[in-house]
Amino acid sequence: MNNIGLIGLAVMGQNLALNIARKGYSLSGYNRSRQKTDEFINEKVKDEKIYPYYDIKSFVESLEKPRKIILMVKAGKPVDDVIQELLPYLDKGDLIIDGGNSYFKDTNRRIEELNAKGIYYLGMGVSGGEYGALHGPSLMPGGTKEAYDMVNELLLKIAAQTESGPCCTYVGNYSAGHFVKMVHNGIEYAIMQSISEVYDVMRKVLKLSSEEIGNIFEEWNKGELNSYLMEISYKIMKHKDEKTGRPLVELILDEAEQKGTGKWTAETSLDLGIPTPSLNLAVVGRALSFFKEERTKISKRVQRNYPTGNLNRDEIIEDLKNSLLFAVFASFSQGLWLISEASKVYNYNIDLSEVLRIWKGGCIIRARILDFLREILSDDKTNINLLNSQKSISYLAEKLESIKKVTKLAKDFYIPTLTINSSLDYFFSMSEANLPANLIQGQRDFFGAHTYRRIDMEGIFHTEWEQD
Amino acid sequence: MNNIGLIGLAVMGQNLALNIARKGYSLSGYNRSRQKTDEFINEKVKDEKIYPYYDIKSFVESLEKPRKIILMVKAGKPVDDVIQELLPYLDKGDLIIDGGNSYFKDTNRRIEELNAKGIYYLGMGVSGGEYGALHGPSLMPGGTKEAYDMVNELLLKIAAQTESGPCCTYVGNYSAGHFVKMVHNGIEYAIMQSISEVYDVMRKVLKLSSEEIGNIFEEWNKGELNSYLMEISYKIMKHKDEKTGRPLVELILDEAEQKGTGKWTAETSLDLGIPTPSLNLAVVGRALSFFKEERTKISKRVQRNYPTGNLNRDEIIEDLKNSLLFAVFASFSQGLWLISEASKVYNYNIDLSEVLRIWKGGCIIRARILDFLREILSDDKTNINLLNSQKSISYLAEKLESIKKVTKLAKDFYIPTLTINSSLDYFFSMSEANLPANLIQGQRDFFGAHTYRRIDMEGIFHTEWEQD
Repeated sequence: MNNIGLIGLAVMGQNLALNIARKGYSLSGYNRSRQKTDEFINEKVKDEKIYPYYDIKSFVESLEKPRKIILMVKAGKPVDDVIQELLPYLDKGDLIIDGGNSYFKDTNRRIEELNAKGIYYLGMGVSGGEYGALHGPSLMPGGTKEAYDMVNELLLKIAAQTESGPCCTYVGNYSAGHFVKMVHNGIEYAIMQSISEVYDVMRKVLKLSSEEIGNIFEEWNKGELNSYLMEISYKIMKHKDEKTGRPLVELILDEAEQKGTGKWTAETSLDLGIPTPSLNLAVVGRALSFFKEERTKISKRVQRNYPTGNLNRDEIIEDLKNSLLFAVFASFSQGLWLISEASKVYNYNIDLSEVLRIWKGGCIIRARILDFLREILSDDKTNINLLNSQKSISYLAEKLESIKKVTKLAKDFYIPTLTINSSLDYFFSMSEANLPANLIQGQRDFFGAHTYRRIDMEGIFHTEWEQD
Repeated sequence: MNNIGLIGLAVMGQNLALNIARKGYSLSGYNRSRQKTDEFINEKVKDEKIYPYYDIKSFVESLEKPRKIILMVKAGKPVDDVIQELLPYLDKGDLIIDGGNSYFKDTNRRIEELNAKGIYYLGMGVSGGEYGALHGPSLMPGGTKEAYDMVNELLLKIAAQTESGPCCTYVGNYSAGHFVKMVHNGIEYAIMQSISEVYDVMRKVLKLSSEEIGNIFEEWNKGELNSYLMEISYKIMKHKDEKTGRPLVELILDEAEQKGTGKWTAETSLDLGIPTPSLNLAVVGRALSFFKEERTKISKRVQRNYPTGNLNRDEIIEDLKNSLLFAVFASFSQGLWLISEASKVYNYNIDLSEVLRIWKGGCIIRARILDFLREILSDDKTNINLLNSQKSISYLAEKLESIKKVTKLAKDFYIPTLTINSSLDYFFSMSEANLPANLIQGQRDFFGAHTYRRIDMEGIFHTEWEQD
């Protein structure tokens, strides 16, 4: 009898299986296509106790009870299909763990359906890509605490290890794990977009080569900006194409694709009424990029007049660095706020500080800044918005002149800076006592009798505007 | 026997009933609460042939066949409830028209369910608020053409009348009408937000009084910016509070509320992958405004340093006007693009130019600019993006220096300009052949093996980035 089962032997599943087996567990593997299973066993598995099964029944029967089965299949219908295939062979008390990027509402539905049958279910975010799956991912499991306790030991062992402990914790009730992973990806989109905007200014304004930009990113990665995304960015910038010898990044088509988690984050933020402009515009940025043909046509119609005069290269690079730090902070602030609101609305009971801790290793958005964010949170655990802290404001204020300069410079050079701009506007909005929404409320009351509140007295008011 | 029935006698329903009756039709009215019906009949109805009914059965039986029944009830469950109440008394060939702000996917479902029973169903957007409902709204009906033909004559009569004809047309198949109304509201949100941003700059940078701003808006409303929203904005700015004698707008709480259609537009644009940054950030702007308490707290933590030196008042006002024109154009461009894409994806078969025509009167976003937009469309009917036209680019290019100056000025004064900023970034993005999304594709391939395409050769590529 094996300790655990894993279904779905694509790269992520394979690597997670190897990771588990290397921590001393015996593992049953199953994949819909026999060929993929065999390739994996023959080519990747060495002395690991990983055993292939070719039908669901023998796969399930090979597992010690209560059974623990991890699904690493595509989100959506495939997850439901596998669950249906498994159900006839499972016993009460068995546990299914969905390690894919499932939509959190699907996870809620599955938890409910399976718990009603006495089957435990965890929705677990797994971040870290192929490398993380093999060497230690960030794991974000959510569901009932009993379900979590069944695999606590195993998950802590296979997760990335940092000086703040393993990158796994019981995230919270219901779909808390998949929700947190979704927002993780939303933040990831925003940081990626911000880095790309900085790159755009460097190449178009400062006329730096890809190699030079790579060197700057490499330098930045040694300091405050140290992070996985900064690290891979400098490596990408410096990578030479084997075929042409040119920097590969210059040959990649600038149409960014997406798989949905960033979009879900933006949609969810709209639904919950939590403003996450940087996360939203990062998704919009990908959509904009996708219309290369239209963009190319339209670009030919525009006469561009660039400013003349000398630019201070070193100063602009420093401003770009500060802008990126500002945008990264704003993106985390927005994402955490969204999680905090969801935790209330959906009764997840999430500890934000723990979320930041388990993002410190393994995952795509791991970054030095996480320790600073945890420090801000620890000052005031009830804080729903990171900006509501003197430390945050001081941090951003130091960078404010830089990000103003960068957004202005970008405009002079016809360069869109969607996430950097909206990170700045997020700061301006959240630190402004008086926004002009009073006019909007007046308009709504004028044309739709939607009523308004007043600053000088309690109550709900409506005005017959047309009478004057 | 009466010509038509109307269910839901809140203000919009009452006014639409009066409008219909005044065009010579006899109308049966029904409302769930008897009291509202009686109040309406006693207080508002004079010689109009409007007859009250107090139960669904006699209401339905009072109508000539095939029956035509307009629902003016709250979107969501109430619509389904009323349909269920009606069904037992309807005959094949009868028609239900949902005149509320229903979510377009609900309308598709209802059309399918009712058509299967032989009942016709139209989802009809109605814009114009209370006033429009009474004096002539903009009507956006969608569904089968046969259903539409049953009420074509009546709808053309009750719609707003302009020199380009009545503000009603058969919008298209399925939920085309409600979809177009949804996007209408999305554009409405964006224009309202842009106007409020202009107002914010005027009061905070130029220190203009509400009255002065009202005068400027009134002046603008006589020219290119002529529009319903400009008109009500100047009236709002000039309105004095009866209680205090102060400008009422200054006493309205700056927390903007929303009822969902703007949010649906933003979510749908994300789903369909059509970039509508101005529409999205208008929704985010309302969410940001909603946290007055947090904003006030955070605002106290920020030290503001404003630039010194003289500002050229008249020049800035002209720049603000141009910025608003720019943002309005960008908002329409984004909304129309979304409709055009939806028309393809959902087989609506919408004529964009007709949509612009029926928005010319009655509705909230009616504006002089619509004729210009129709002119651009008529030059190239296959155009999916308004920016892909020399006329558009010339129009925006004239205003480009102004909007750059305004966004820069706003940053100097800590003023968020979410929709104006994102309108500019929309222009920059859509007129840029080379966006930095190549780096994003590189990152995605690096951490997730998501592959990329190249600009110099066909195919799908993956790189083993870590090998160097």
